[in-house]
Order: sequence, then C-alpha cells, then structure tokens
Amino acid sequence: MVENETELRVRYVETDQMAIVHHSVYLHWMEVGRTEYLREKGLSYAQLEKMGIRMPLIEAKLEYFSPALYDDVILIKTKLLNFTKITFTFNYEIYRKSDNKLLTRGMTKHVAADLANKPKRISKEILSIIGG
Amino acid sequence: MVENETELRVRYVETDQMAIVHHSVYLHWMEVGRTEYLREKGLSYAQLEKMGIRMPLIEAKLEYFSPALYDDVILIKTKLLNFTKITFTFNYEIYRKSDNKLLTRGMTKHVAADLANKPKRISKEILSIIGG
Amino acid sequence: MVENETELRVRYVETDQMAIVHHSVYLHWMEVGRTEYLREKGLSYAQLEKMGIRMPLIEAKLEYFSPALYDDVILIKTKLLNFTKITFTFNYEIYRKSDNKLLTRGMTKHVAADLANKPKRISKEILSIIGG
Amino acid sequence: MVENETELRVRYVETDQMAIVHHSVYLHWMEVGRTEYLREKGLSYAQLEKMGIRMPLIEAKLEYFSPALYDDVILIKTKLLNFTKITFTFNYEIYRKSDNKLLTRGMTKHVAADLANKPKRISKEILSIIGG
Repeated sequence: MVENETELRVRYVETDQMAIVHHSVYLHWMEVGRTEYLREKGLSYAQLEKMGIRMPLIEAKLEYFSPALYDDVILIKTKLLNFTKITFTFNYEIYRKSDNKLLTRGMTKHVAADLANKPKRISKEILSIIGG
Repeated sequence: MVENETELRVRYVETDQMAIVHHSVYLHWMEVGRTEYLREKGLSYAQLEKMGIRMPLIEAKLEYFSPALYDDVILIKTKLLNFTKITFTFNYEIYRKSDNKLLTRGMTKHVAADLANKPKRISKEILSIIGG
Repeated sequence: MVENETELRVRYVETDQMAIVHHSVYLHWMEVGRTEYLREKGLSYAQLEKMGIRMPLIEAKLEYFSPALYDDVILIKTKLLNFTKITFTFNYEIYRKSDNKLLTRGMTKHVAADLANKPKRISKEILSIIGG
Repeated sequence: MVENETELRVRYVETDQMAIVHHSVYLHWMEVGRTEYLREKGLSYAQLEKMGIRMPLIEAKLEYFSPALYDDVILIKTKLLNFTKITFTFNYEIYRKSDNKLLTRGMTKHVAADLANKPKRISKEILSIIGG
C-alpha cells in the first residue's frame, strides 16, 4: 500500500489560547495529505473536480495523542486504506518532525459525488490510478 | 440527561468551493455547543480556565449525513454522555433549523488538564455542577 | 445613513496563542455584519447570489485598538458608506459589549460581480433596496 | 532592503463558495511571510516569543487584484518597510506562481509588546537583527 509523506509548518493562526494547535486544524492537514497523495498518484484533486468528481466526507475520526505547537514542522503520512466505486477511506498519521512524535491519528471516509454533490460511480480507469 | 440547544447562522467564510460548509467547521460548532452546555449548567468554560482547568480533546468522531449551506440557521444539540474525574465525553447532533434535518452527528472526548496541559483530576464540586 | 447592529460571541477557535482573537477573524465578523446589514434592508446576500450577484472584495482596511477575548460578546456596527452601480464601501466598528470598548474599526470595498466573478452593474431596483 | 520570498499551496479549506480563496486568508499568508522573513534574518518569531516579545497588529491594509484559486502555488514577497523601537511595518506582495500574476498587495503595522500584550521597547541588538 502506497503512502504519501507531506510536510508543512504550523502557522500562528492555527494555534488557540491553550498555546497548541486547535483540534479542528488536523482535518485541514489531513486534507493536505489527501491532496498530495492524489497528486503523487498522478491525478490531482483539482483535476478530479475538473472531471466532475468530488469526494465529500461522510465520516471522520481523530485521536489526539500530543499537541502540535507553533512553528513545528509537521509530517503527514497518508494512505488509501480501501475503496470501492463509490467510497474511499484514507488513514493518516501526523508527526512532529523534530522528535518524530506521533501527534494525531485520523481516518476520513468519502463518497464519490458529482458537482451537484450527488453520489456517482468512479470509472475503473480513475480507480486504477487512485488506488493503483 | 440534560441537553443544551444552541443556534447559530452559517457564515460565508465557513463554506468551501463545493458550496457547502467545510467538514472541519462542525468541530467549531460542537465547541460552541459545549461552551453553551457548560454555561447553562452554571460554570462557563471561561470560568473553568480561570480556575486552572482546561479540557483538550483526546478523540473526535463525526458522521456527515447532509451538508449545511451558507446562511442556514443551525441548531446544535449537546449532551454530556459520561464523565469521570479525568475524562468527559460529549455527544452532538447538528440540525438545519428550516427543515429540521439532521446534518451531522459527533462525539468528542476530553481529558481534564491544568494550564500546562497536564492531566488533572476535577473536584467533586465542579463535577456535580458540570454533570449534575 | 442606516446602521446595522449585530452581536456574536467569541469562539475558542478564534483565539490564538497570544490569548486574543486572531487579527484575521475581524474580517469574518465584518462579513457577518455586512450579511445582517443586507438582511435588515430586505435583500439577503444569499438572495443576491441566487439573483446572480456577488460582491467580492477589492480592498480592506483594519485598525486594531484593543483585542477581543474568548467568550466576549461582540457588537458589530455596519454602515454602507457609499455605493455606485459597480462598487460598495462598508464601514464597521467592532465593540466589546460588556464595557462598550471600541476594539477594531474597518472598511471593505466591494465590486459587484456575476457568478463568474466578472464585474456587473447593479440595477436601480436593487440599489434602492441596498442603499435606501 | 531585504525581501523574503516564501511559497505555499492553496488548501481546499481556504476557498469559499465563490470558488476563490476567502479574502481573510491573505492575512494568514502574510503572517507566514512575516514568519519566514524573521527566520531568514536569523531570529524566528517563535524565538522572539520565548524572549518575551510579541508583535500584535495595530493596522492592516489589503488590496485584492485577482483571486487565488484552489491548488495554486502562491509566492509571498515580504519586506520590512520601516521600524522604530516600538513599531514595525511590513509590506507584502502575493503572486500566483504559474503566471506570475500579482493577486494581492498588503501592509501590516505591529507594535512590540510583552507577553501580557503591553507595549515594550525592542533592544538595539534585536532591532539590528530584524532590520539589518
């Protein structure tokens, strides 16, 4: 199973007054991981949208082990756990680069949809690129 | 089990280019629901922080059934599902007001912590207010 | 000149690790003020979009006098300063409700656009509602 | 006058239902530009905070010429326009990398403050690093 690794740096705006990254921000980063996973496979999410395909979420789970801090370099590891013609499940592990600490683990499940957000089957050609 | 009901209106900034509310925003609204739950019980989260108590997340789950749209009036129903001296679990149901449609269901689990984000036991007095 | 007054409460996610509201959030609140200004005039921004009219920003200015804090109740005063068939300028004053302190003053200038984000003249009928 | 150049890629969450980047997001990117400007000078904002110095905004101006779009690679050019012992003014130009189009121009003015957000004079040593 192929895994994408993407890095980013924590922005000030992503912290809250606990002086840690707000728990909702990890969903933004998982979205970045997903985007880079697809780009690495050869079909970016931007291209998928141009082909009339979207992947809205139907489920998300997050486990928070340790907080990310301002200016940390973050490593996002993204895997496509499984998929059908109509659903996709991604898994994520989010690490701090400096001490290689696992901060958060997550899962998102998506349904394939058209531009009107109606469910839509994905063609074999596209599935073989995304999941190949 | 007491349940808090809070309303808010979807902001333009909360939408994304799918023309629906971004999936991360529901965590913001669940935070609003939690805040109002505590205020209704008589001890606001702002007061808890002044007393040296925080409630960072250790887990979150979301199920997305139907998207919230710009300018929708949203109803957030928040329950404290269970708690110990050290952990709290809230459940949420998020509805569109106009058609009473259930849009999202969620859960967040929290650990009680001090201002240095170290785990901390909550006193019986505070527990009896929050969970009473 | 008519002025809209709208209230909201500061969300935890809107704070940063300075323990104040992040400076970008005031643009979200000015957007809320603009939305409520238009609704009060009788033509919501959601309706304008359905009529094929959008109002993207071409300019914004903000002066920050004092920070908003978590859980503060905020009062947004919004005025339509001037308008033509093609541009609109709004002014904002943002106060903390509890001590009536002016926290931020702002201005946004907008161009009327169609759904492809091309400039578009606004009809007299709509102008008379918005600016009346 | 030294200028920092930093790149980032537009995230899906940064778009709104106009299918463009929300106007408030440019303030996040200008913050990233400022952070990288300081890091390049040899004193990161994270280090400044550890030394008890913060730089809250007292003013911001933005001009929007053309919208950034999802997945665009963005180039942020950041300059320290001028500074005193107590205030700092940064200028920004934000470009799309692919066509080198100027999307947004901005300015932020900051006051030096201590960790209680009270104004504070910056030492000559630090000024010579930041502005040198």
